[in-house]
Amino acid sequence: MSILIKNATIVTQNEKREILEGDILIQGNEIAEVGKVDEKTDSVIDASGKMAIPGFVNTHTHISMTVFRGYGEGLPLHDWLNKKIWPAEAKLTAEEVYWGTLLGACEMIRSGTTCYSDMYIVHTDEIAKATEKIGLRALIPRAMFDLLPGRDAKKELKEAVEFAERWNKHHLVKPCISAHAPFTCSEELLVKAKEEANRKNLKFHMHVSETRKEVFDILKEKKKRPFEYLNSIGLVDEHSLFAHAGWVTKREIGIVGKNKASISSCPVSNLKLATGGICQLTEYDELGANVTLGTDGAASNNSLDMFETMKMASLLQKHHYWKANILSAQKIFDFATINGAKALGFNNGSIEKGKLADIVLLDKNAPNMVPFHDVLANLVYSANPSNVADVIINGKIVMENKKIENEGKIIEKVKELTRNYL
Amino acid sequence: MSILIKNATIVTQNEKREILEGDILIQGNEIAEVGKVDEKTDSVIDASGKMAIPGFVNTHTHISMTVFRGYGEGLPLHDWLNKKIWPAEAKLTAEEVYWGTLLGACEMIRSGTTCYSDMYIVHTDEIAKATEKIGLRALIPRAMFDLLPGRDAKKELKEAVEFAERWNKHHLVKPCISAHAPFTCSEELLVKAKEEANRKNLKFHMHVSETRKEVFDILKEKKKRPFEYLNSIGLVDEHSLFAHAGWVTKREIGIVGKNKASISSCPVSNLKLATGGICQLTEYDELGANVTLGTDGAASNNSLDMFETMKMASLLQKHHYWKANILSAQKIFDFATINGAKALGFNNGSIEKGKLADIVLLDKNAPNMVPFHDVLANLVYSANPSNVADVIINGKIVMENKKIENEGKIIEKVKELTRNYL
Repeated sequence: MSILIKNATIVTQNEKREILEGDILIQGNEIAEVGKVDEKTDSVIDASGKMAIPGFVNTHTHISMTVFRGYGEGLPLHDWLNKKIWPAEAKLTAEEVYWGTLLGACEMIRSGTTCYSDMYIVHTDEIAKATEKIGLRALIPRAMFDLLPGRDAKKELKEAVEFAERWNKHHLVKPCISAHAPFTCSEELLVKAKEEANRKNLKFHMHVSETRKEVFDILKEKKKRPFEYLNSIGLVDEHSLFAHAGWVTKREIGIVGKNKASISSCPVSNLKLATGGICQLTEYDELGANVTLGTDGAASNNSLDMFETMKMASLLQKHHYWKANILSAQKIFDFATINGAKALGFNNGSIEKGKLADIVLLDKNAPNMVPFHDVLANLVYSANPSNVADVIINGKIVMENKKIENEGKIIEKVKELTRNYL
Repeated sequence: MSILIKNATIVTQNEKREILEGDILIQGNEIAEVGKVDEKTDSVIDASGKMAIPGFVNTHTHISMTVFRGYGEGLPLHDWLNKKIWPAEAKLTAEEVYWGTLLGACEMIRSGTTCYSDMYIVHTDEIAKATEKIGLRALIPRAMFDLLPGRDAKKELKEAVEFAERWNKHHLVKPCISAHAPFTCSEELLVKAKEEANRKNLKFHMHVSETRKEVFDILKEKKKRPFEYLNSIGLVDEHSLFAHAGWVTKREIGIVGKNKASISSCPVSNLKLATGGICQLTEYDELGANVTLGTDGAASNNSLDMFETMKMASLLQKHHYWKANILSAQKIFDFATINGAKALGFNNGSIEKGKLADIVLLDKNAPNMVPFHDVLANLVYSANPSNVADVIINGKIVMENKKIENEGKIIEKVKELTRNYL
């Protein structure tokens, strides 16, 4: 199968960050050529008036929680979790997780995301199955925790490893190892989990320092701040991805940077849950960390829109430092594409020969995208999901002219399931 | 001309804030009935699977500045204004203002805005003409300032009054009186401007306390904080609308509230320009002010999207007060609709019998709008411009099934003009 995308404005995200006018040749699941291409292909997409960008990499979400969008709104955080989300999660069925994943996938595709990183504990095979079914790329774990009643480190690890082995030979889905958070996992589990990830050459993903409370709980128990603690037990390296990471000291940012670890900042969710503070993306970036962006789940966002997340991430830095020209639009776009790819270990995130063909076409001639004074500023500050026209993942067209196969059926099924469920 | 909207989920914004399943009958430019309607009309819109909301009222923008979207990005505020925006504005032609307004109008319509409040100084007749041409509703002034070289209070006032008289008999456009800001206008001009507004029964619109610097400049010169000063010269009453109003004391919020004046908070622009601080919407609302929302111009936003502005406004309050359940989604939606209508003095902002027919239909069955646990939360936190299907203003369909008449021509014309211009 080969596809030729003709006459696009291509935001390559290559080494030189070139923006080219030209064509993209896709052969199989890879980009075979970028530039002027004259070649017979199975299909041709006329991209005149369109902009081709590498699809967004959303590095932290809980995709199946899309079924909880808007559930338990207007409650303080503690009541929201205890009275609404956790009781609801305890009753979640495999079917709800499967269809919730498909729903979240449709929303991601419509907003230009082609690759995501999940974290969930139950029915994770359903998440992986649904993701492959719709044709999205993802890094998926069977996440673990053992510091709550009825949980056992050994059993957690066994299930996580079995999941990883089951999904290790797939194309779109890759497994990773994930421990929920420093305050929900024993030191023993954390150490063994990371050892397992290293042994299997898998990425490691966890929450850290989302709220101020957990920072002080860890400090009290371990006499170290969270990243100092995690570093002391060997968890902070270039194969680790830490979500949130907002309540940190400059010394901790230095630890993350020096070890070239990745962080996934989720600004929309952090503000919605009022976790306080602003994640210091600027300092993480300056000190060598790989900065990436995530939406978190739709239960706390309440969308999965990476355009919104880019703009929010950028604006919060300007606000926090009282500096309008901090972090360029190019930097923010890097966080959402090429840096995300690096964090998850996929060969995507840019439009270059030899990269996986994960490409999004945007309407350039939409009123919110005109004029063209600054293409990157338009992408980061002006674009929204209404501009997404076509989405190609792994060389396959998953959205064509704003149409996704079976989307209507997915929506009806989720509506039916959530009627039964609540 | 009559239109029947059948089988919609209607977010009425009536006194009881009811959400109904039913029909909306439009006769001429008014809503004639809401509920179950069986009546022959000139046209029928099948709104099954759609949600009808009152169109957003964007209470502060500079619509023609849409031609500057993304222009001079990445510069500190002072350089951006001095080296880019002001020199560019000095050269703006009537034609650029006219087509820039049409472009901004298309973007507003596509993002569900049916009514806006502008502030601009040059070629304001072109703004009014273009607004009426495309069928948007607006409050438009010929704004004034006299504290810069070459400006004269008398001439300013004369032109502002003549503009108001020219546009006072129109349907979609209503004039208002606007003075730019306390630091750009003499006390004499401010007093006379407000007297003129009172005499003609017009709304009064100005910037105030956008940056910390201007607050301290006024404090130094007038020995009063901006709202204390404005109140002492009779400018703060229920017919006044103050944009930004972010750098204020609680005492000033009390003055605004007691006098039932309106504020237009523009959170996206404030963050983008790094003005610092968070506008205390919660306190303004509690102390009796009429809180409304604006996008500001696309030069500093860089979009005109009220969905984004609602979400940003809400999330910044949660963040600022470390309180996830501060200000309900309903309150935020009120700010963006019914409160905006009150501030501008239009009989719109809700879907009720006798109101002006300014209605937006959204696709309910889009992946980012499902499930329906909480309709208001979905509107404020999950919806985006891709959900806007049809827009009716003043009883006339201005966007039908995502199509706006002449939009392609408007976009091409702006591209051509901005090519010449830069």
